[in-house]
Amino acid sequence: MRVLIVYYSRTGNTKQMAEIIARGIKEEGIGVEMREVEKVKARDLLDYEGLIFGTPTYYGSCAYQIKRLLDESVSFHSQLDGKVGGAFTSSANVGGGNETAILSILEAMLIHGMIVQGDPQGDHYGPVAIDSLDARARDNCERFAKRFVHLLRRVYQQAR
Amino acid sequence: MRVLIVYYSRTGNTKQMAEIIARGIKEEGIGVEMREVEKVKARDLLDYEGLIFGTPTYYGSCAYQIKRLLDESVSFHSQLDGKVGGAFTSSANVGGGNETAILSILEAMLIHGMIVQGDPQGDHYGPVAIDSLDARARDNCERFAKRFVHLLRRVYQQAR
Amino acid sequence: MRVLIVYYSRTGNTKQMAEIIARGIKEEGIGVEMREVEKVKARDLLDYEGLIFGTPTYYGSCAYQIKRLLDESVSFHSQLDGKVGGAFTSSANVGGGNETAILSILEAMLIHGMIVQGDPQGDHYGPVAIDSLDARARDNCERFAKRFVHLLRRVYQQAR
Amino acid sequence: MRVLIVYYSRTGNTKQMAEIIARGIKEEGIGVEMREVEKVKARDLLDYEGLIFGTPTYYGSCAYQIKRLLDESVSFHSQLDGKVGGAFTSSANVGGGNETAILSILEAMLIHGMIVQGDPQGDHYGPVAIDSLDARARDNCERFAKRFVHLLRRVYQQAR
Repeated sequence: MRVLIVYYSRTGNTKQMAEIIARGIKEEGIGVEMREVEKVKARDLLDYEGLIFGTPTYYGSCAYQIKRLLDESVSFHSQLDGKVGGAFTSSANVGGGNETAILSILEAMLIHGMIVQGDPQGDHYGPVAIDSLDARARDNCERFAKRFVHLLRRVYQQAR
Repeated sequence: MRVLIVYYSRTGNTKQMAEIIARGIKEEGIGVEMREVEKVKARDLLDYEGLIFGTPTYYGSCAYQIKRLLDESVSFHSQLDGKVGGAFTSSANVGGGNETAILSILEAMLIHGMIVQGDPQGDHYGPVAIDSLDARARDNCERFAKRFVHLLRRVYQQAR
Repeated sequence: MRVLIVYYSRTGNTKQMAEIIARGIKEEGIGVEMREVEKVKARDLLDYEGLIFGTPTYYGSCAYQIKRLLDESVSFHSQLDGKVGGAFTSSANVGGGNETAILSILEAMLIHGMIVQGDPQGDHYGPVAIDSLDARARDNCERFAKRFVHLLRRVYQQAR
Repeated sequence: MRVLIVYYSRTGNTKQMAEIIARGIKEEGIGVEMREVEKVKARDLLDYEGLIFGTPTYYGSCAYQIKRLLDESVSFHSQLDGKVGGAFTSSANVGGGNETAILSILEAMLIHGMIVQGDPQGDHYGPVAIDSLDARARDNCERFAKRFVHLLRRVYQQAR
């Protein structure tokens, strides 16, 4: 069982979030890869049980580089059905479009037939960093990694 | 393992959708109850592994009666974490707010920590009836029931 | 030309935001009323050129009391067409559903045919208070008031 | 006063919608240009009072080509403040992500500080074509053009 974290990062914030999430997943004993979106082909998405996308918040949705990969994934439509998904974002401001950015990815995952879960305590739709990667954001990334693995294990019926 | 379908229906369309979904779930061998939202207390939600909410599309989100139940469920916040959720809607028109209505419920479910899944072939976010309950909408309700049970079985690790 | 601010507030945060916005609108020379949602009838909405709704963030959308008023406003559907609208929210957390809460109101306003505007500098969809009403949130409320009046004057072609 | 319609179209449906809207705007006596997104530079957006974006529905949001232009427009952030915006989409299915696709554009426009309006009778968030460009979709495009010009005239205080 393997997880792919696809990210686009210009300033490094989104990449740092990806690193914390990758470490958390690894610590739970699940194989994980981190790849810049430019180095991911749509076909690669088929090889993983879990897919996590990270993006800066650009105009209330994901960076176009992420969207391009999602658009290209139409060649494999229905083949991601039943996989587990999640998303995270780094944003300049509170109220700056971070929730809609995460939801733009989760909605694409739902359209692929993927399975997503929220969090009743942490950032509800997925981890959000505001401005820099402060302790709050780091905690949310760690928490997200643990919950993602838990969901993956439930869905793929793998005992811990 | 049991599923509760909570619905609000003024004209009967949403109720009919609930009936088709309930029948589909039952046919898959899972216990299911259908209840008008006015007869559901927030505490009742704890008793089911699967929760499905049905609503007419009113101004782009769920009817306030559904929202009231969601607001009241805050007394049990974190106790729905990990349950399986889904939503459906009946709407007057194409482009009439049906997708945002379903998403208003799915977003609340994510905030509760619930698990949701989309559909790559049928109505992506959840079944939508436009105007009346035509064959297209019926098929989507039946399809949704089957997929919901499949997800429930995966998450609760129950062999068929 | 008059503005109505409709709000629901349990802890007082949303009410305080309403007060700052009301003061800002008044300072710009426009008549403004602030009313608890329980004291507003759908018919009242017809009497104002500008409508602003304030809500706590409850499960990613507006409080059901606000939604009930929106649902009841269907009796006057098409009669709010061309009015100017806006929304604000108080929320417990970053990433806690505040953006989707504001959008749940803006979407209802669009369905009524109303005119809304975002903000390229302040909170983009509408003012958001996280936890308490800090300086950031106050500034956003003041800024929102000024911009709302500016839009109202443009739409209703009233010279300053 | 001039309007730019930016569109991406692979099968020709979105382009046809753009043509109907362009014709409708011209008939109302307003200058209008139609341009494929690949031929538009972010700087060009500054030259128009009204901006309309058309996109196929791809995974619940706009095509990445449209998103790329929006991302690039950050170089002119705050300079679109107060302009009038709108969006339309062609989609394969009911419930197929068409509303969220339009909203992905409207949200970006709000973040730019732009002014948008819904429609209480036609497709509420913007014109939607399902599958092909049927009479329903054509009517919605024509209706949208008229309303867009009306809003433009109100906002820019131009008598008919």
